Amino acid sequence: MDPKQTILSMLRAGRDVVSGSELSRALDVSRVSVWKHVHRLRQVGYEIEATPKGYRLVTDPDIPFAWEFPGREATIHHFQRIESTMEQARGMARSGCPHFTVVVADQQSAGRGRLNRSWHSAAGGLYFTIVLRRRIPPALSPRLNLCTSLVLADTLRRDYDLPAAVKWPNDVLVDERKIAGILAEMEAEADRVSYVNIGVGVNVNNDPPPQEPGAVTLRRLMGKPVSRKQLLAVFLDRLEARLASDSMDMESVIGTWKSLSITIGRQVKIVTLQGETQGRAVDVDSNGSLILELADGSLKTVLYGDCFHV
Amino acid sequence: MDPKQTILSMLRAGRDVVSGSELSRALDVSRVSVWKHVHRLRQVGYEIEATPKGYRLVTDPDIPFAWEFPGREATIHHFQRIESTMEQARGMARSGCPHFTVVVADQQSAGRGRLNRSWHSAAGGLYFTIVLRRRIPPALSPRLNLCTSLVLADTLRRDYDLPAAVKWPNDVLVDERKIAGILAEMEAEADRVSYVNIGVGVNVNNDPPPQEPGAVTLRRLMGKPVSRKQLLAVFLDRLEARLASDSMDMESVIGTWKSLSITIGRQVKIVTLQGETQGRAVDVDSNGSLILELADGSLKTVLYGDCFHV
Repeated sequence: MDPKQTILSMLRAGRDVVSGSELSRALDVSRVSVWKHVHRLRQVGYEIEATPKGYRLVTDPDIPFAWEFPGREATIHHFQRIESTMEQARGMARSGCPHFTVVVADQQSAGRGRLNRSWHSAAGGLYFTIVLRRRIPPALSPRLNLCTSLVLADTLRRDYDLPAAVKWPNDVLVDERKIAGILAEMEAEADRVSYVNIGVGVNVNNDPPPQEPGAVTLRRLMGKPVSRKQLLAVFLDRLEARLASDSMDMESVIGTWKSLSITIGRQVKIVTLQGETQGRAVDVDSNGSLILELADGSLKTVLYGDCFHV
Repeated sequence: MDPKQTILSMLRAGRDVVSGSELSRALDVSRVSVWKHVHRLRQVGYEIEATPKGYRLVTDPDIPFAWEFPGREATIHHFQRIESTMEQARGMARSGCPHFTVVVADQQSAGRGRLNRSWHSAAGGLYFTIVLRRRIPPALSPRLNLCTSLVLADTLRRDYDLPAAVKWPNDVLVDERKIAGILAEMEAEADRVSYVNIGVGVNVNNDPPPQEPGAVTLRRLMGKPVSRKQLLAVFLDRLEARLASDSMDMESVIGTWKSLSITIGRQVKIVTLQGETQGRAVDVDSNGSLILELADGSLKTVLYGDCFHV
C-alpha cells in the first residue's frame, strides 16, 4: 500500500489532529520519513497543517491521483494536463497495458470528441479513457460504448439522484441537457478486438462549454461542487462489475440501455457527412444501431451519425 | 520508371533477342550499366541469357516484385518470406503509409487466418494485405471485407472463367471448395476508421493445406500453373476501382455480394465460441450480418462466426 494512502486515510478518519508518532507507527517508518511523505502530498495540493500535536488535513484537493483509488493504483494514470487521454491511452494500449487501464486528466489541450470533433476540456471537468481488452469481434464493440453510457447514466441516477438518461448513440443527458459524452477507438487483429478505448468527458465543476449552450454541469444540477474522484471511483467500480458480469450479454445491455433512453419513441433527425434522415426512433438493434420509422412507414437502420431530437 | 521495367518489357516484347546497345539507348545509360541491371534481375530469379547478339529472357519467375506492377512500384512491398503480411502491414499503417499500400509475401512463417487461427502459407500461394484508409465509422468497415471477397470472386469469374462464389462471411469458393480466405484488422480513432487492413490468402500453385481437405487451388482448377503476379495485378485494379466508385454504397455492395453468394437460401450452422446456431440463411443486412430464419420461424441476426453449410 502506498504510504500516502495510509496517511490520508488516518488524517481523514475524523479526528482533528494525528500525531507524527502515530503515523510513524502505522507506517513503520521514522518520523522524518513521515514528514517527507506529508511534504510530497503538500506539493501536489493537499493542505496539511503541522502543529505541535501533529498533522491536520485542511483541504483535500479533488484531483484523481492514482493513490486515491485503492486497488487501482497500478492501473490509473493521472495527468494534470495532457494533449488527449485518447492519444495517451492508445500508446499504452499498443504497448500492451492491461485491461481496465485508466488515463485521467485534469485538463486536455486537444481533447477529442466523436467524429473527430474537439472536446472542450476546461479545469473542473472529468476527462478519462479506459482501455478495455475483450477478445470480441469488432462488430460487437458498440456494446461497450452502450454499456459505458448506461452505467454512467445509472450512476448519476443511483448515487446523485439525478434523472439521467441516454441519447443515441453515446450521450448522457439530464433533463435533456448534455452532461457527458462518450467516444470509442479500437484496434482489431485477425477479426478480434485487441483493445477498445472508451473516452468519457463529464461536465462536473467546469464551466459548461460555450459552444454547447445545451450542456449542463453536475455542479449546477447539485447546487454545489461535486467530487470528481468520488464520481470516477464509483463509476469505475460499476462499469468493471457490469463488464465482468453475465449481464454483458447483448439483450441485457440493449434492454437496460433502452429503459434509460430518451431517444426511443422520439421524432429525430440523424445527420451524417452524407446527409440527413428524419424519422421516429423505434428501436435499437442488437448491434447498437438505431431503427428509424420513416414517413412512408418503412424502417431504416442507422449505424452512426449525430442525433437531434426534433 | 524503374530501369528493370523497361528491360523486362523490351525482353518480353516478343523478339527472341534484344541487343545491349538497344537497351542502352532506351534507358539512356551505358552498356555496362545495362549489364548491371540485368545482373540484378538474374540475382532475384529472372533467367536472362547473354549471347553475342544480345539478351534473351529464358524464364520469368512468378514473383510479385514491386516493379512488376507499373504505377504501384511505390506502394507494393514484396517479401520472399515474412512472419505475416498482417503484422507487417499493421506496422506500416501505424506509421502512416498511404491508402492502398500492399504487402505481399511468397511465404509466411506465421500467416494468420480469421479468429486468430493460423493460415497455411506454403510457397506457390498468394498472400497479401492491403491497407485501406477510408474515414468511415467502424460500423461500416465490414463492407470493405465484403467488397474484397466479391471483387475476388468476380475476378475469378471474369478473368479465369471459374464459377466462383462467396460464402459468408469472407470465403471465396469454387464448386463449394475454398480457394481463398479474407480477414480484416482495423484501427479506429474518435469513431472513425484510421485503417482497415484486409488480408487475402489465395490457393494458387501451392499444395492445398493438408488440414483443409475441402480446399482447392487455382492450378488444379485450371489444369496448369497460374501467374500469381497477373492475378494480383488484375485483382488490385478491380478492387481499387470498386472502392473508388459510387457503387461502394452499401446497397450495391450487398446486392452484388448476395448475387455471388452460395450462403443465402442454404441451411447453415453458425459456430462461435459461445455456441452453435442452426437455421436457414435468408439475407445479409446492410451491416454485413447474416440473417437466419430459425426452426420456429423467428429471425436471428448473426454478426460473426464460422458458417457451415449443412
